[in-house]
Formats: sequence, structure tokens, C-alpha cells
Amino acid sequence: MQKPTLPKGTRDFGPEQMRKRLFIFDTIRQTFQRFGFQPLETPSMENLSTLMGKYGDEGDQLLFKILNSGDFAGSLTEADLQAGSKKLTPKISEKGLRYDLTVPFARYVVMNRNNLPMPFKRYQMQPVWRADRPQRGRYREFYQCDADVVGTDSLLCEAEIILMIHEVMRNLGMQHFTLKINNRKILAGIAEAIGMPGQEGPLSVAIDKLDKIGKDKVLDELRERGFSEEAITKLEPLFGFDNASTADTLTMLASWLDASTTAQQGVAELQETLQLATMAGLENAQIDIDPTLARGLSYYTGAIFEVKANGVSIGSISGGGRYDNLTGAFGMPGLSGVGISFGVDRIYDVMDELNLFPAGTGQGTQVLIVPFDADARGVALPLVTQLRAVAIPAEVYPDLAKVKKMLDYANAKQIPYVVLIGSEEVQTGQLTVKNMVTGEQQKIAQADVASFVRQR
Amino acid sequence: MQKPTLPKGTRDFGPEQMRKRLFIFDTIRQTFQRFGFQPLETPSMENLSTLMGKYGDEGDQLLFKILNSGDFAGSLTEADLQAGSKKLTPKISEKGLRYDLTVPFARYVVMNRNNLPMPFKRYQMQPVWRADRPQRGRYREFYQCDADVVGTDSLLCEAEIILMIHEVMRNLGMQHFTLKINNRKILAGIAEAIGMPGQEGPLSVAIDKLDKIGKDKVLDELRERGFSEEAITKLEPLFGFDNASTADTLTMLASWLDASTTAQQGVAELQETLQLATMAGLENAQIDIDPTLARGLSYYTGAIFEVKANGVSIGSISGGGRYDNLTGAFGMPGLSGVGISFGVDRIYDVMDELNLFPAGTGQGTQVLIVPFDADARGVALPLVTQLRAVAIPAEVYPDLAKVKKMLDYANAKQIPYVVLIGSEEVQTGQLTVKNMVTGEQQKIAQADVASFVRQR
Repeated sequence: MQKPTLPKGTRDFGPEQMRKRLFIFDTIRQTFQRFGFQPLETPSMENLSTLMGKYGDEGDQLLFKILNSGDFAGSLTEADLQAGSKKLTPKISEKGLRYDLTVPFARYVVMNRNNLPMPFKRYQMQPVWRADRPQRGRYREFYQCDADVVGTDSLLCEAEIILMIHEVMRNLGMQHFTLKINNRKILAGIAEAIGMPGQEGPLSVAIDKLDKIGKDKVLDELRERGFSEEAITKLEPLFGFDNASTADTLTMLASWLDASTTAQQGVAELQETLQLATMAGLENAQIDIDPTLARGLSYYTGAIFEVKANGVSIGSISGGGRYDNLTGAFGMPGLSGVGISFGVDRIYDVMDELNLFPAGTGQGTQVLIVPFDADARGVALPLVTQLRAVAIPAEVYPDLAKVKKMLDYANAKQIPYVVLIGSEEVQTGQLTVKNMVTGEQQKIAQADVASFVRQR
Repeated sequence: MQKPTLPKGTRDFGPEQMRKRLFIFDTIRQTFQRFGFQPLETPSMENLSTLMGKYGDEGDQLLFKILNSGDFAGSLTEADLQAGSKKLTPKISEKGLRYDLTVPFARYVVMNRNNLPMPFKRYQMQPVWRADRPQRGRYREFYQCDADVVGTDSLLCEAEIILMIHEVMRNLGMQHFTLKINNRKILAGIAEAIGMPGQEGPLSVAIDKLDKIGKDKVLDELRERGFSEEAITKLEPLFGFDNASTADTLTMLASWLDASTTAQQGVAELQETLQLATMAGLENAQIDIDPTLARGLSYYTGAIFEVKANGVSIGSISGGGRYDNLTGAFGMPGLSGVGISFGVDRIYDVMDELNLFPAGTGQGTQVLIVPFDADARGVALPLVTQLRAVAIPAEVYPDLAKVKKMLDYANAKQIPYVVLIGSEEVQTGQLTVKNMVTGEQQKIAQADVASFVRQR
């Protein structure tokens, strides 16, 4: 018999990992809800007509496609076969797995446009699937946690996202992070200022690599992309923002880009956004205005956000921005919105590496009750019910086994307290409670076990 | 442009539905955890070699299969095509979507057998997918919530499942339900008693339909399946348990089936299970021992459970039982276990139909703050932060809009309180708080808004 395996790029999450993941999910969900975002879930499968063409050619390739049910090959001809995999696919597959949460959200908004209160604030926490080549930290199934508000272009929403990012990080216990902010209009203004108007696309593709390949190679890439030496010289100020405060950065940008009205608008938007966040009482702001931040630009039209944890070399744990045409592909143009996405898998990796999970996060059962014989069960069973009634996770060891085996079980499950019940305990009603961390044992009356455990 | 649609048999869950679903998920998860079950999640995709052959021929047909990535058709020949869809599938698909939570659990246990503390108690709450014909109440994507304990045959586990079912129902607020219990050994004993030993399979297929088609048609079906008139006459007592108490039912079964040691063992197991549950303090037991309960028998070897809500014609909302060979198909025979599965979609339908969701379950934001101008934002923003800091979900209307529009938004989102801030409120610090249910308005100092809302 062949040993079972997992499909590559996928993972099981066992109890300890799951509890830590649930801590992350619960924290993000609670924060989203406090900010007035409402839950949404969409199906794992979408029609390929909904998904195809939304993520570029590479994305189309990376979609997991579902084979049609029934006799899918019945009407195929040899010509279909010879046309190749790409042309064959739509003949045998109509559905694909969700690739992100943004396109299904846009599809939902369009399908429910007449019933949604606008502005519509939704959050969504679900897995997505990509047929990427699996590698360290990159999986074929992973969770995204998105919050978006659509139907308004108020900068209050950008300010709220800044507040919410700080709140999520604080609630997770991730105090050391950097929230990088930029604005598409500043990138467009830079392109104007260096005499390459409209070229912020290729410009940002190159400068996006600054962290990885360094300034010289970025400039080489720009030369290859047709940027003149004059343009490259004019770009110089871009590399001088590194240690400037947010206020200084905005002043420097305004002065450098004073000829571009687009850039001035971008600077003004950033300024107002930060003012609103301050007005709302933002504390310990960990904001870095980074005019090189582009996040591939994709569909962003205004603010661009990215969050990295300090002190670890793990990529960004969150990113987002403002877009103006999310639903355009589904026939509903001009709907402005702004959103943020948290990557649970990366947050987990950071928290695990930096040991940030609160003590006990991975812990489940608090009390294991160990009856030595059938009589002892008469004490064990009412006790377990008592404990559960006051929300203490508890269990009775189900078999009559050797004490060592039962204590090993408690240790393997990291259960902190074991209640031992033998004939003496049954007679006296004084139960033996063992602290599995210290090894200490003491006698406690049955009625007092719950309060004893709760106090610790 | 074509309007986007959903794949048939799938659903979006909007905010109100989602909040109600989250109430169900949270309640079940919390109860599972109190009983010492530990969380597990497995990937949505499994290798087809893991899934195929586990659910019968029909199940194999109903698996959603995922098209291999890349040039899947590159090596296909015309002969492959002519061999038909069934033979073609394994050449173009290696993975399928999870069909239930049981097989992935068994696969996980086998792959981690050396590291799992036994007995292993796990719960799992994830969607499953079946290419069934969609119909009312039957979907292609739906959630299962399973709790199983494997590695012990102690009847304490059966008793715990009975307790846990009662606890889940109580915590959901579903007071009126019936937990039907039977035991495979009783079904086997009945087959022996009527002179058809080993025929409990066909016997239970027929009597499973008792509720739907009535006694006469069940007997006709048995005749067709080769049961003699003598056997059918001997079966008569089976239809006389309807209004008997659990104690009477057990006595009647013991007397009717006194010649079958298997049946006596089944009766004794049921008796001990109920004693253990009583010992643990089971209150308001809603148990009905039903010797006709079979649930298709499938892999059950001992106890069989089924839960139905009273007062609605919705099928079972939960089911489970004991099995002895869950992991046998993966080369690990003889692992006994017992489990229960809750169907969230059906529980939702019952609670919705009977109006059982606690008031406010569907509610999100508690307070909408409505600033009339830019100055008012200076009051609105600190206030929203204050409210969120004490865990009151709150939001600021982001645009400067007409009051009616903002109140309509609050009503559409079922927000119970709106705080109106105009120039008078900014000057006096006395904000106008409007109760959206009663229409009542009153002036409240900014610092008192949080406690005002909390008291209500």
C-alpha cells in the first residue's frame, strides 16, 4: 500500500499551529468589525469567465481549473486535442478556484449593486489558490484577509486604514513594524518631473526592485527601458528620502515636484490623510512615506500601503491601496474604493520567528481528569461537567490505563493540570491536582477544583 | 458585457447571513474546545489517489477534479480521447477537492501516526465540495463541522458525544431537537433474530426509508430483496418502539433479541453509554433510542447518532457513530474511533425558519457618527477611536452628505445609534444621539457616549 501524501504546495495545520492561526484570524476579524467592516464570503469556485483576464497572462496560467463533471470529453475531437492545452481548457473546464479576494468582491458588488448600502465596507477572510511553483514561504493554498470600502473617495477611508493597520499590529502584539505609504499621483508626478510623463509604470517596475538589487542596477534597468541620462540625473532626489521624517519628506517632495500639479495633489492627499489619522488619535505612528513604493502599481490610483515587520527578513505582511475601477471589468465603471490585505501565513511566520504569540496561545485543554477505576468515573464525570460549565476546557482520559501513560498524554497535549482520582480520592472527596509544569501535587476538594484552576 | 453569475450550486454569504453563520461556527467551535477537541485543518485539495475509491462509485463521480497545470494535454493521444472521460481523467487530473472531512482526517492520522498523542481528539470545520445536482437545501459547496476521537474504544467517548450534542444545541438556542441513537450490533442482532444473519445491510437500506415511504412499502422492498414472509413476520416488533421510553426500549430489545449475543452486546453498550452520560449530569436529555436508525450503515460498527430539529421538515442536522477501520484504506488497520458531524447550512436553515438567532446576531456596527462638516470631524474622529477602544464597533460616515442619506445608510446597515455632529454640537460638546429603533434623540456629552451605548 502506498503511503498517502499531500499535494505539493499544500499543508496540514495541526492543533498547535491551528490555535496560533485562530489567534491571528480572531484578532484581525475583531479589529475589522470594530472599524465597521462587514463579513462577506464568496464561493471557492468562480466561473472562468469571471476570473480569466483579470490577473494578466501569468495569472490565467496560475488559476486552478476544475474539470467539468460528467462526460466532459464526449464531444472532443482530435482537432481539439491538436489545438493544444490552452485551447482545449475552455472545452473541458468552466470553473476555477478563487485566485484572490478582490475579483470575487468586485463580482459580488456588481451582482448586488441595487441592494448594497453605499459606501459598502466589507471584510473577507478566505483561502485563495495559485498554481505557483511552491517554495519556502510560498504555497498553493493560502489565506488572505481583506478589508475594503467602495463607493466613496473620502480620504477618511485612507486614514481609517492607517489606524486599522496600527490597531491590528498592536492587537497581534507586533509592535515593531513599518507602514510604508505612497501615492500613485506622486509616482506619476516624478515621471513628469524627469521628463517622462505617463511612464510611471516602467519607472515603478524598476524602482520596486531597489531593496533587492540596489540603486545602480535600478538605474541600469531604467536605461534599458529607454530612460535618458538627463531623466536619470533628474531622478536623483528620489534616493535621498531614506531617513527623513514624514513631514520633511512631504516638504521635499512638494519642492522637488513643484511643477507637477498631479504630484502636488498626491502630496496634499498624503498630508490630509495623515492629519485625519492624527485627529483620530493615532499613537506611536510607525509610518514611512516612501516615494519609491509602487507594489507593482497594478490597479492603484491613489494611496499605496505596505507593511513589513522589523527585524525579520520576511516580505511584506500587508498591502493595499486606492483603486478607481475595480468593478469596471464587470460593467460597473467608476466605483472608487480603498482596501488593505493581510497575509496570515506571513504574519504567522513573523510571530513564530520573533516568539510573539501570547503564552498559552497554542494551548487547548486546561485540565485532564484521570480516573483510576470505574468508581472514580463517578467523581470524574460530574467534575468535567463542572469545569466545562465555567468555560474551562477539560477532558476525562477515556481508558483505564497506567498512570504514566495518562501523564504522558497530558504532557503531549501541553495540558497544565491533571486531576488524579483513585479509591482514596473517591472516599475522601479530596482530589489530587498535579501541576504538570512544576510537578507539584496538592489535595483539593472537588468543589474547589474549578476556582483553583481559574486562579492560576 | 455579460453580467457575472455564480457557478450553480454555490452561494455568496452577505453580511447578515455571515454574522449568523459566524455565530453558529463560534458556538460549535467553543463547545468542541471545551470538550478537549483540538483544531485541525487540511488542504482543500487532496491527491485523487487519496480520495478515489473511498466514497463508492457515485462518490468518485461526484468528486470535483482539478485540471493539471501547464501543458496537461501535451502527451495525450487520440486513443486516450476515444477511451472516454472516465479513463481520460487520471491522465489530465491528479488532484480533487475535499469531499468530506473524514478521509482527510484519516490521511492526516496515518501521516502523523508517530507524533500524535493517542487517543487523538480533533475537530475540523471546513467546506467540502460535491458535484451533486443542486436542489433546495443541497449545495455544491457546504461546511461540515466534525469532532472525532480515535485510538480508544471506551464508551465514555460515546457518552461525551451525547453530552456535546446537547451542549451545542443548548448553546445555539435550539432547545427542541431529537437525538436518535442506535447501535450497529442491534441491527446485526435483528438480522440474526429474523433468520437473516449478516443481512443487516439490505435490511437497514430498506428500513432507513421508514419515515419517507411508510411501513408497508418498506416491507415490500424487503420482499423484493429476498426477505421471506417468515422473516418479515418476525420483524414486526421493530415497528412497536415508537413511543417507548429509552429504558423500556432497551428492555424490549433485550427480550426480543435474547437469542443474539451480538444484539445483547449492543443493548449493553447503549445502556452503559446512557449511564455514563447521566453520571456526567446530562440534563433534559432528548434521546430517542431508535432501532431502525441506520444512516446508510456506511462504516459504522457500534453507536449510530442522528439529530433532527423538532417542528421543521428539514433533514438531519447532525450525524455520526463509531467506526473501527477508518484508517485501514491507508495501511493502518484497527484504529477505533467515534465522531459526530454538524451541518452548518442545515442548522442555519432551522434557526432561520424558527427565528432562533439571538437578537442582534445579524448586527455589526453599533454606532454611526455623522459629522456635518470638516470641523465636526475634529469631534467625530476622537469619538470613534474612544468607542472602538471599549470594543464598540463604530464608524464615521466618510463623505459630507445629506443627513437623510446618512440616516438611510444607518438603517440599511441596521445600526442602532447615530451620533449627529453639527456646528452647535462642536461648540457645546453636547452631541445628538439618535436611537434608530425608537427615533428618540437626546443630547449627550462626548465623554459619555460610550457608556450610554453600552448600557443599552
